[in-house]
Amino acid sequence: MERTKYLLDEKRMPESWYNVAPDLPFELAPPIAPDTREPVGPEAFEAIFPKGIIEQEVATERFVEIPEEVREIYALWRPTPLFRARRLEKALDTPAHIYYKYEGVSPTGSHKPNTAVPQAYYNRVAGVERLTTETGAGQWGSSLAFACQAMGLECTVYMVRVSYGQKPYRRIMMETFGAEVFPSPTDRTGAGRAVLEESPDSPGSLGIAISEAVEDAVTSGAKYSLGSVLNHVLMHQTVIGEEALEQLEMAGEYPDVVVGCAGGGSNFGGVAFPFLRDNLTTDRNTRLIAVEPSSCPTLTKGRFTYDFGDAAGMTPMMKMYTLGHSFVPPGIHAGGLRYHGDSPILSALVNEGLVEARAYPQNATFAAGLEFAKAEGIIPAPEVTHAIKAVRDLAVEAREAGERKTILFNLCGHGYFDMAAYERYLAGDLKDLEHPEEEIERAIARIP
Amino acid sequence: MERTKYLLDEKRMPESWYNVAPDLPFELAPPIAPDTREPVGPEAFEAIFPKGIIEQEVATERFVEIPEEVREIYALWRPTPLFRARRLEKALDTPAHIYYKYEGVSPTGSHKPNTAVPQAYYNRVAGVERLTTETGAGQWGSSLAFACQAMGLECTVYMVRVSYGQKPYRRIMMETFGAEVFPSPTDRTGAGRAVLEESPDSPGSLGIAISEAVEDAVTSGAKYSLGSVLNHVLMHQTVIGEEALEQLEMAGEYPDVVVGCAGGGSNFGGVAFPFLRDNLTTDRNTRLIAVEPSSCPTLTKGRFTYDFGDAAGMTPMMKMYTLGHSFVPPGIHAGGLRYHGDSPILSALVNEGLVEARAYPQNATFAAGLEFAKAEGIIPAPEVTHAIKAVRDLAVEAREAGERKTILFNLCGHGYFDMAAYERYLAGDLKDLEHPEEEIERAIARIP
Repeated sequence: MERTKYLLDEKRMPESWYNVAPDLPFELAPPIAPDTREPVGPEAFEAIFPKGIIEQEVATERFVEIPEEVREIYALWRPTPLFRARRLEKALDTPAHIYYKYEGVSPTGSHKPNTAVPQAYYNRVAGVERLTTETGAGQWGSSLAFACQAMGLECTVYMVRVSYGQKPYRRIMMETFGAEVFPSPTDRTGAGRAVLEESPDSPGSLGIAISEAVEDAVTSGAKYSLGSVLNHVLMHQTVIGEEALEQLEMAGEYPDVVVGCAGGGSNFGGVAFPFLRDNLTTDRNTRLIAVEPSSCPTLTKGRFTYDFGDAAGMTPMMKMYTLGHSFVPPGIHAGGLRYHGDSPILSALVNEGLVEARAYPQNATFAAGLEFAKAEGIIPAPEVTHAIKAVRDLAVEAREAGERKTILFNLCGHGYFDMAAYERYLAGDLKDLEHPEEEIERAIARIP
Repeated sequence: MERTKYLLDEKRMPESWYNVAPDLPFELAPPIAPDTREPVGPEAFEAIFPKGIIEQEVATERFVEIPEEVREIYALWRPTPLFRARRLEKALDTPAHIYYKYEGVSPTGSHKPNTAVPQAYYNRVAGVERLTTETGAGQWGSSLAFACQAMGLECTVYMVRVSYGQKPYRRIMMETFGAEVFPSPTDRTGAGRAVLEESPDSPGSLGIAISEAVEDAVTSGAKYSLGSVLNHVLMHQTVIGEEALEQLEMAGEYPDVVVGCAGGGSNFGGVAFPFLRDNLTTDRNTRLIAVEPSSCPTLTKGRFTYDFGDAAGMTPMMKMYTLGHSFVPPGIHAGGLRYHGDSPILSALVNEGLVEARAYPQNATFAAGLEFAKAEGIIPAPEVTHAIKAVRDLAVEAREAGERKTILFNLCGHGYFDMAAYERYLAGDLKDLEHPEEEIERAIARIP
């Protein structure tokens, strides 16, 4: 029987995260204050993050040790399996070898706990007793709820109201792990009350929920936790790529292309940065492809400039690809990819030509996701169907060119909580929701 | 770091299923015809099963080779991991070592594909083009849909109407794998039309859905597929216990107790029979405990007698523990454990004292399930919380007795599709739904 998967013994789980910052062949632009436009120091983040997290955000060493206690929790699901997608290869009749790392085996079904656990850990070490955060569809909120439960912290989640109503299963999962979950906007914060005063029936937004979570933390002595975008978050996710490197070595392979979907960038950075290290420090030259929705085309149609991380303009400004912080992406099913900006590191890499970006409309990604599910058995989350669509296209190109390419992608989560999206796709009810070009221009023009 | 899990390389996936029949120290009572009460031969099943399946149902060899093509599909998720529940042990402050085999990593999230795949395979080999089946909450229907997709068969699922409405995600999963799903009772069969004529708003039942699936198969040249109870189904599930034996050996352990939940018996038989083999053929003496809901107490309060397998009385009669085929179990959340009868082999083992049985009310099982989720991160399906409750009690007994017991159980599925049940438990809205004693007596009295 031909081999289908490569399992790594837990003794070979990575002992360090990889910090790409010191290997970058360019200077990363620092965050700046919106009023002075001067760089802000780490202390700008002290109100919301503990010291341990800030140290990681600005770390200069290449490898950062993973604390023993974090590794013990990681061991509940890590190392995750690497699969060779033999049945998909056959369905596509391609000479390409397709490998996928499967992060859906985590307690909450995605890669998010890889950073939620260390974030909860460093907060507990700093004496923090409660974490606040926001969540849209609930992937991040449920992961932080799990991590807080594991580390003995309380957890408060502001969940975008429309999702709170439409996605009760994710909310219940958070509550099962002991978190308190509020539909945002709430009357618990000034930010929430201001919105409710103007529109009592507001469905909420990620931007509003962030403002509420930050305000809750700052005014109560709790701390805040973010699930993507920032350097330390991407660093925590590199366990994915580090394991994949080892597993591909077991398979006697090295990828020609690494593909990941990108919303805030942590999934992509997690799988790609260890291969980027080889590109930067050896004579390897692996193509790295970040895939996003064409309805929220940050990396492919955004501007590389300073902008706010949140919709309300409360954070320091970061240099990144952005559609403008006031841009509201259409309501596609890949909720995790609906972000106006992107990781500053990933943005700079795309700007320097070290990472490619491409975008697809959602019907094409669901078609690829369904094809994958039928071949491999795993129903993928809508986010990762974007990566799958790119992989499919690459595999077909390889067939047409008669080239034996090796492709790796990160299957960052399963779609068990997204079956309603598949139903709409199967019924032909899904719209492609192309981005409104003028709206992007207007939003970009609004960046101060 | 102490070891948390034991992964088996796919090269060590079992090459045979274990058939317990020849090792049983007693004669299994044959199925009989209800009219003559004479034993029926294998040919009684030819209208609904292909030859390959009937041969397995009456197999006399101890080991039956797993076809290469079935092993290739198994490899999409097998071997499944064996976990040491160190965090649960710590939470319970027990000297017991608790191990769990995790079948939730399968494409449909439970152990069911272990038999769905070979059943689809043997049907395809026999030239069958379409399989029919029934499903309640959808675990079995989605597994057969996946298997038919993998083997290139069509699949028709009669889903109990009330579940069809209440559990859309499972239905969509079946459709994603290409199955057609009908809310039963339908007007597609005589059995369905008869019910609809009397009660047009019938919510349906598993019994009605079975009748519809069987009638559809018999009248159309399709074949029928059953997800539990029968000998061949239990045999296919023994891959679970065979792998666990090897993985425990890696851990340097052998269990003192093996626990599984029991509805039709295939989950329990799957994990327990390889250990039963050691009990029967060596000087091992492992306790084997089957756990059921006290609202459907087949093994603990039923009668060991001949009864029909289906509610309508259309099948041959089998000797088993039964609450009477007309017994309608209360609507507990563990839908997979709501069956009036049980596997004839498991029933005979309980009757002979070779397997113990115990029953728990659902609130106690959800409490144990929640405790497990908080410690281990995996939210268990309501069915397996019954096993977890027993494991918990055994671990506490071990603590009180100061005994270092080794306990193994099969975590047969995750609860991602059952979050509404957890919500009701967390809200205190769950009833224990104790079985109505007189109703069981009445139903037993109705057995011909």
